[in-house]
Amino acid sequence: MLYEINEKAIKLESQGKKIIKLNIGDPDLETPNEIIEAAYAAMKQGKTKYGSSYGEQKLREKLANLHHVKPENVVITPGSKWGIFSTMYLLLKGSGNVIIPTPYWTAYDLTAKTVGATTKLLKTEFADDWKIDLERLENLIDKDTRMIILNNPNNPTSKVIDSKILDGIVEIANKKRITILSDEVYADISFKKTKSILDYDENHILVTGFSKKFTMTGWRIGYLIAAKEIIEKITRLNQITITSVPVFIQEAALKGLEIQNQLTRKIKEEYKIRAEMASKMLSEAKLEFTKPDAPFYIFPRRPGLDSEKFALNLLDKGVAVAPGTSFGDYREHFRISLTVPREEIKTALDTICEETR
Amino acid sequence: MLYEINEKAIKLESQGKKIIKLNIGDPDLETPNEIIEAAYAAMKQGKTKYGSSYGEQKLREKLANLHHVKPENVVITPGSKWGIFSTMYLLLKGSGNVIIPTPYWTAYDLTAKTVGATTKLLKTEFADDWKIDLERLENLIDKDTRMIILNNPNNPTSKVIDSKILDGIVEIANKKRITILSDEVYADISFKKTKSILDYDENHILVTGFSKKFTMTGWRIGYLIAAKEIIEKITRLNQITITSVPVFIQEAALKGLEIQNQLTRKIKEEYKIRAEMASKMLSEAKLEFTKPDAPFYIFPRRPGLDSEKFALNLLDKGVAVAPGTSFGDYREHFRISLTVPREEIKTALDTICEETR
Repeated sequence: MLYEINEKAIKLESQGKKIIKLNIGDPDLETPNEIIEAAYAAMKQGKTKYGSSYGEQKLREKLANLHHVKPENVVITPGSKWGIFSTMYLLLKGSGNVIIPTPYWTAYDLTAKTVGATTKLLKTEFADDWKIDLERLENLIDKDTRMIILNNPNNPTSKVIDSKILDGIVEIANKKRITILSDEVYADISFKKTKSILDYDENHILVTGFSKKFTMTGWRIGYLIAAKEIIEKITRLNQITITSVPVFIQEAALKGLEIQNQLTRKIKEEYKIRAEMASKMLSEAKLEFTKPDAPFYIFPRRPGLDSEKFALNLLDKGVAVAPGTSFGDYREHFRISLTVPREEIKTALDTICEETR
Repeated sequence: MLYEINEKAIKLESQGKKIIKLNIGDPDLETPNEIIEAAYAAMKQGKTKYGSSYGEQKLREKLANLHHVKPENVVITPGSKWGIFSTMYLLLKGSGNVIIPTPYWTAYDLTAKTVGATTKLLKTEFADDWKIDLERLENLIDKDTRMIILNNPNNPTSKVIDSKILDGIVEIANKKRITILSDEVYADISFKKTKSILDYDENHILVTGFSKKFTMTGWRIGYLIAAKEIIEKITRLNQITITSVPVFIQEAALKGLEIQNQLTRKIKEEYKIRAEMASKMLSEAKLEFTKPDAPFYIFPRRPGLDSEKFALNLLDKGVAVAPGTSFGDYREHFRISLTVPREEIKTALDTICEETR
């Protein structure tokens, strides 16, 4: 229902209605000017031709350095979503199952089903502080299980996986020879140190991107780090689908990496303030939620809430949120994205708190 | 072998070797400044957020107007290649066969096989002026045939399909209820009027883009026109794969459309001169070829040539061309792209004519 709400919100806006969009993780912050200027300079230099389907070598080298891998382990993708789709498409094509802890980002499930795989959902609960139960994970694995998808920090809960639990997940995956696809798109701007899947020896897969940490959502650029064979396969798929991410966009992302600390510090500071403000309002309204470890999302709950009706009703009042059912079996939850200016968060939360009373 | 030669050419270049690249259709001409400035202005206006997976409404409306369809029949794609992949992926998923006249653009065959379909090649010959034989086409169709792919004008021959023959193809397709996917990416800059698949009543599919006509290859933007149901399906696939083409790139393409006549006139003039110059040199060297109806490509033949060896050998001499085997059963042919400055075409053709002597 996530996409439907978004398209409906866009439609209402095009009709002139004011919608405060807390439904998607598309930050109000502007893409930093340095990045825009780098893209423009690259265009003016004629970097408007076909690029390599691996991605530009300079960018791959920079990312390889940052992640302590080789450039041959890096492929540039049009958004981290493409990394997820292409991996699933290539590794699961028409068979097998994927284990996805919930609440999850909608696209994992949709993508797995689109490529013909089945999904096995591993529910985590607000009451357990969203902890993944290792015994239940191990029991869920069967002979057709090909992949475990982790989202760390998690969308929609903004929880970072506890490093001991992550150790346990990796141990189980290695023992059973299952690939972990770890989506760490919020890790670089997390409020809390996030252990990466690349901190382990075995060949698992990292997908991430520049959208969130550099406020580049609409630029469509991300990357994937994996064993060389997987990079080769994705590159061959790139050749017949997207060709490459525009080179001038890759140059812009490279510029962002050069000033990464400066950019992410600012972004984190702003989201920290928003998260604290929202947490306070939600607590006062007696909504249940875990304190976010990372920017962007909070996933509150009100016992008895029908979040789909709630979200549609709220849209008519000028606020878009994502119903909990978009993230698994969480009818009583809804997700808010703190991706609008503070005063709008306040206005929207006033409406939300009013409506959940 | 097309991609291998290209990656090898890029590698040789990165080692400092000068390669005249006649192997890919990536024009030396710069993206027009008006288009670059439109992209920059859009970035500065904050058009750097997620866009609709359908594409921007303004651009869809403009294209709908140009093609005499409704906006609901248009979806914006990251290059025309994505239109081809997504259509095949959605309509052929794991079954059926596709008829492709040859010589063909490599990606059709690779894509069909990647999505699990089989391909039936319909060979056309230099000796027949590359005409598609309607009787052979009809005989090739069986109960599992789902699609016919046309490339009009054709890559690599630069031939425009004769309008009477196109009438015949459409008639057969309609009778047998087979979808035609017509890739018309060179049509707007063709030297000769090209009849479009949209000139027919039935629901066939047009894929095209801005790469060639506005010299925007590296920008990755194209579009697809089809029945609403197909547009909806592609949009749902977009949602879990590429999300959207960057909005600032869509704005840049829209700017191009506003000054289309001015831009395409210049491009056609330049390619006309190149095509005439190259034709003269190739004729003098006694190579066989049909005179190009459209910019970019010539597909010469020398009886007895092994074009794969020839292409690899030529790469060592600083000229990249595409071997005929990349386009079907055409070992004696090779494709040259007239997408480098005139003096380089001359230098490269001197080498080519020398090597084919």
